[in-house]
Amino acid sequence: NNSPELELETFDKDLIFQGLKRMYRKKILPLEISSKYGHFHSPPLSPSDFDAKPMVLLLGQYSVGKTSFIRYLLGRDFPGIRIGPEPTTDRFTCILDGEVDKIIPGAALCSQADRPFRGLSPFGNNFLSKLEAVEMDAPILRNITLVDTPGILSGAKQSVGRNYDYDNVMKWFAERADLIIIMFDAHKLDISDELKRVIEMMKPHADKVRVVLNKADSVSTQQLMRVYGALMWQLGKVMNTPEVCRVYMGSFWGAPLKNTEQATLLNREKLDLFQDIAQLPQNAVMRRINELVKRARGVKVHAYIIHYLRKQLPYTFGKREKQARLIDRLDRELIMCARRYELPRGDFPPVEPLRQALLEIKDLSEFPKLDKKMVKEMDKVFSVDIPALLEKARGEH
Amino acid sequence: NNSPELELETFDKDLIFQGLKRMYRKKILPLEISSKYGHFHSPPLSPSDFDAKPMVLLLGQYSVGKTSFIRYLLGRDFPGIRIGPEPTTDRFTCILDGEVDKIIPGAALCSQADRPFRGLSPFGNNFLSKLEAVEMDAPILRNITLVDTPGILSGAKQSVGRNYDYDNVMKWFAERADLIIIMFDAHKLDISDELKRVIEMMKPHADKVRVVLNKADSVSTQQLMRVYGALMWQLGKVMNTPEVCRVYMGSFWGAPLKNTEQATLLNREKLDLFQDIAQLPQNAVMRRINELVKRARGVKVHAYIIHYLRKQLPYTFGKREKQARLIDRLDRELIMCARRYELPRGDFPPVEPLRQALLEIKDLSEFPKLDKKMVKEMDKVFSVDIPALLEKARGEH
Ligand SMILES: Nc1ncnc2c1ncn2[C@@H]1O[C@H](COP(=O)(O)OP(=O)(O)OP(=O)(O)O)[C@@H](O)[C@H]1O
Ligand SMILES: Nc1ncnc2c1ncn2[C@@H]1O[C@H](COP(=O)(O)OP(=O)(O)OP(=O)(O)O)[C@@H](O)[C@H]1O
Ligand SMILES: [Mg+2]
Ligand SMILES: [Mg+2]
Repeated sequence: NNSPELELETFDKDLIFQGLKRMYRKKILPLEISSKYGHFHSPPLSPSDFDAKPMVLLLGQYSVGKTSFIRYLLGRDFPGIRIGPEPTTDRFTCILDGEVDKIIPGAALCSQADRPFRGLSPFGNNFLSKLEAVEMDAPILRNITLVDTPGILSGAKQSVGRNYDYDNVMKWFAERADLIIIMFDAHKLDISDELKRVIEMMKPHADKVRVVLNKADSVSTQQLMRVYGALMWQLGKVMNTPEVCRVYMGSFWGAPLKNTEQATLLNREKLDLFQDIAQLPQNAVMRRINELVKRARGVKVHAYIIHYLRKQLPYTFGKREKQARLIDRLDRELIMCARRYELPRGDFPPVEPLRQALLEIKDLSEFPKLDKKMVKEMDKVFSVDIPALLEKARGEH
Repeated sequence: NNSPELELETFDKDLIFQGLKRMYRKKILPLEISSKYGHFHSPPLSPSDFDAKPMVLLLGQYSVGKTSFIRYLLGRDFPGIRIGPEPTTDRFTCILDGEVDKIIPGAALCSQADRPFRGLSPFGNNFLSKLEAVEMDAPILRNITLVDTPGILSGAKQSVGRNYDYDNVMKWFAERADLIIIMFDAHKLDISDELKRVIEMMKPHADKVRVVLNKADSVSTQQLMRVYGALMWQLGKVMNTPEVCRVYMGSFWGAPLKNTEQATLLNREKLDLFQDIAQLPQNAVMRRINELVKRARGVKVHAYIIHYLRKQLPYTFGKREKQARLIDRLDRELIMCARRYELPRGDFPPVEPLRQALLEIKDLSEFPKLDKKMVKEMDKVFSVDIPALLEKARGEH
């Protein structure tokens, strides 16, 4: 089989991650710094953004079996685990690879530079007290990180006790996750407004979303079909994508099936889901490469925008007024910039946020001159360095 | 069991239909005629509007098995039947109860006063050549009428050869049908734009719509689940109702199941669908009563509107101008009319079409005076006649 996806399985992942980190540090980061990319878009990547394990995010209504599923994947309890028919999990729990069982409180977790959770600090103490990590030794954790989340309640119950920015915390995790599992319970399928809102937040990440219809063995086959159909009906309306979301139905815990009529189906579904999860590390390599390329294109365009605007400014008088005028007609300036430097319009950022960020810059002429050599070096990342890295990783294995 | 729905099963349907016909002729129709209800709204009901058998409308992409399903319900071929893997059915075929096998061409069908198809004549000769009825003797036809429709093709193929107003023909049938079955093929599930449009036309009748996922035995269980899920996903988006449409999956023809893994499920689904169809005659009684009551309320309001407007006209000069002014400010006049005669606002027709119809009336004062005795008689339809009829039908059985 010659498909690149399968070949990737024989890649040396660590070699690739090291290579990407080096490329970023040497060829992309310098341009980010000189063009203040961090001010306009997102802060520089940290090493953990490259080699952190693929993250699986679990979410869903309370009591659907999220924590039980995690326990099942781990093969045993994690420290501090709580499972029960009432709403139990009240925090975000990141389950990480470690030699001994250990609980790391949220505030401590966010301050570890080698962990990919530093970006959570801005959510503040109220949130950090609802965040923790556990370290433990379990085979699956050598390849992936799991994140358990508080069950979604409905109506007023939901907002009580949530004194942090839940939506943005969810979005933060969803952006970074490699797989988002939305879990439902075949027993009580009702998509509350709160759950619907969370599902809608996952729409930009539709390709990473999988749905699990849990406890599928506790209803009759015909009931299961009705529940499954109703679920798809509602999801189609909420997600509103042409691509159908993959739904795995089964019973994802240790106990034997209650209703065995669909045993063959449910067992196959379970195998499929596990295969989906097992492929994450391989897919993560491609995704990291892809993300890096996307970022580099964004950085290049950004550097040229700054360069272009800076060049329009007069040397002596009227700088301030000219800068204000440029920002004012920013949309037209961006079109000119794209034309002059032959940059793809699709790589340009949205105008409004850029305008806002520019308004905070006193004097654009204080930016360093664009170093074209730096740009050329970065261009080589796409054309030379990444292909070479992939070649090397394949060869050395 | 005391629920009225179940009690209805022991009703004498024919007695009820005869009673409704008599009530209509004696108490509602006179008011319709004197107030020209037909000019403003819809032509008088014909006897066949009361006792026509419940109609089941079959529709879907070509080759999904619509005609085969009808054949299966009938237990044998109907005259002129064509079944095949290519697009076969090219016409609307109404399958009716009759003593001997007989084909009735479209034009002849529309001119039969005792058939409920007279309303199809205005669709013209091009359509009538694509319409036919067949009469035959089959047990199911004693209780229901079946309508087979041309398979929906996709893209350009569809419009070629359709030289009649397909959409409005479909709507005509959908309005009159008691059950609308949209059939899909588990093999080739793809909702073309043309099919999507037809499904959207069925939205006002969502309560009558059932979906059949046919040939469910020709794929594996997991494939069937994917296909079923994808179908619900897409239907949810197209129908966009909170209520989930009932989908029956199975193989609806005479042959034994190919893949028997889901035999239990598919057989149960078939039983459920047949039960759904078997209940139609009972439900039709309630629907006919309901429709008659709705119509009578509309007739009453209409008669009062004419009465009210007529009373505003001067006896001698300035009639024309006054009538024009009344029509001009018709919305306000309707509110006054509702208030004066204590009529429910919800029974009033939409203003614009009424205005248009009024503009075609030269002189409103030529309408006969409203006969209040007639209105009183009609009021008794709701309060006395229908309850008495139901009582009698129950008693005599
Ligand atoms: N596959 C399953 N079949 C039947 N019951 C299950 C299954 N998985 C979990 N349960 C039961 O469902 C209940 C809820 O489980 P669990 O605490 O894992 O749910 P949760 O989604 O983590 O809830 P919360 O959001 O409140 O944390 C428990 O009583 C558990 O034993
Ligand atoms: N339940 C079934 N399982 C497998 N094949 C079937 C089934 N029902 C019908 N078929 C086959 O599918 C093909 C199409 O059947 P049929 O002509 O009844 O479809 P149709 O929906 O009426 O098509 P058209 O819209 O063109 O009239 C035929 O070859 C028929 O034998
Ligand atoms: Mg939990
Ligand atoms: Mg056909």
